[in-house]
Amino acid sequence: MSGRLIGVGTGPGDPELLTIKAARAIATADVVAFFAKRGNPSNARAIAKAHFRTDQIEEALDYPVTTEIHRHDGDYQTQIRTFYDEASSRLARHLDAGRSVAILSEGDPLFYGSYMHLHVRLSPLYPTEVIPGITAMSGCWSAVGLPLVQGDDILTILPGTLDEDDLVRRLSDTEGAVIMKLGRNLPKVRAALARAGRLDGSVYVERGTMDNGASMPLNDKQDDVAPYFSLILVPGWSGRP
Amino acid sequence: MSGRLIGVGTGPGDPELLTIKAARAIATADVVAFFAKRGNPSNARAIAKAHFRTDQIEEALDYPVTTEIHRHDGDYQTQIRTFYDEASSRLARHLDAGRSVAILSEGDPLFYGSYMHLHVRLSPLYPTEVIPGITAMSGCWSAVGLPLVQGDDILTILPGTLDEDDLVRRLSDTEGAVIMKLGRNLPKVRAALARAGRLDGSVYVERGTMDNGASMPLNDKQDDVAPYFSLILVPGWSGRP
Repeated sequence: MSGRLIGVGTGPGDPELLTIKAARAIATADVVAFFAKRGNPSNARAIAKAHFRTDQIEEALDYPVTTEIHRHDGDYQTQIRTFYDEASSRLARHLDAGRSVAILSEGDPLFYGSYMHLHVRLSPLYPTEVIPGITAMSGCWSAVGLPLVQGDDILTILPGTLDEDDLVRRLSDTEGAVIMKLGRNLPKVRAALARAGRLDGSVYVERGTMDNGASMPLNDKQDDVAPYFSLILVPGWSGRP
Repeated sequence: MSGRLIGVGTGPGDPELLTIKAARAIATADVVAFFAKRGNPSNARAIAKAHFRTDQIEEALDYPVTTEIHRHDGDYQTQIRTFYDEASSRLARHLDAGRSVAILSEGDPLFYGSYMHLHVRLSPLYPTEVIPGITAMSGCWSAVGLPLVQGDDILTILPGTLDEDDLVRRLSDTEGAVIMKLGRNLPKVRAALARAGRLDGSVYVERGTMDNGASMPLNDKQDDVAPYFSLILVPGWSGRP
């Protein structure tokens, strides 16, 4: 009998934003696996560690590269594919031995999560369950108390990596928007929001649900410095009563 | 000292998908409020009731109308506005008396939630906290185990109420999509997906995280019957390795 694979969403950072189901899955798994940047502690482990048992097997999956700058580069692609292949093999040995394996995933596992790379490799072979998590964007608009979309609103989730004209076009044609992957893209994103007439009302959030989180109207942000995992919320619900 | 307002996401249906924070907020509030269709039990209350205390004040907020068919109608608008005004006044009396009030919201409070109507009325007046919840769409793609979006993918969340040409245009111009509010819109949505070349791979889900949930490839769905709260998932991540 092979073990069960469980993709577990840990939510956006606040350990209290784990679901009851996620906490139980972590506490009862034989093996808990988590991603980390090499040389750094795992964020997902830090969020979930209150639910670990002392007799659990831990599997740290360390990314081979610490930056995404070259992610269209062939070498990067090969390295990252090899990493996911090896990580899957490592966890498959536990599953083959009948051990259940919980893979922690920050946010929601199937929504831009690294877990997806293991899911497509392992879920065809083993009984699999995915436990959703609170997404980073949801954690951010809740922390800020910003109503995002209502009724028949369209919501568009955009990477800040799109070119400026594409951003303008899409921001002009949606009620709500979330712009992720800011980092060095912030000046371009700001210009696109202004051209689309959506700068007013937009809110900049970094580390939304963490102790050192910060947010402000984008209009009030004086600098162009943004961590990669900050985001901008563009509220819809223009028909608000 | 006025009481604290807490918007509490209950998640999509499975009581285990409440967050630890939501469970604690419900268990410690002086008053728990929840929406229901008049004459029906409240779904949100059913999801959260394991965390209620016996000495809590319950406030059932019964919608005055049981259908959204006429929601652009003036009478409906007046009725629903009056309903939210009166519900806010009712809860404000508790807050003024120093009682904390947790308002349950299915899914995530600020993401298409009825809670938003109370939030805009009460949060300017009282200390307010919003606890995010697992969205219905997240519950659905997790239940189905369908990787939705990855990397630089764009995700577009669309109401099935859009006209067919608009749906085709938007579905042709996004990696991932979620189409909500199916109901009688299903035949039109299906036609739009076919025209956009996105029918293959799309998955139909109803009551995603509930005991009587069902899902199937949209191609395999033989009829045009869909509950209003079913949805269609259109996966992105075409660059999957």
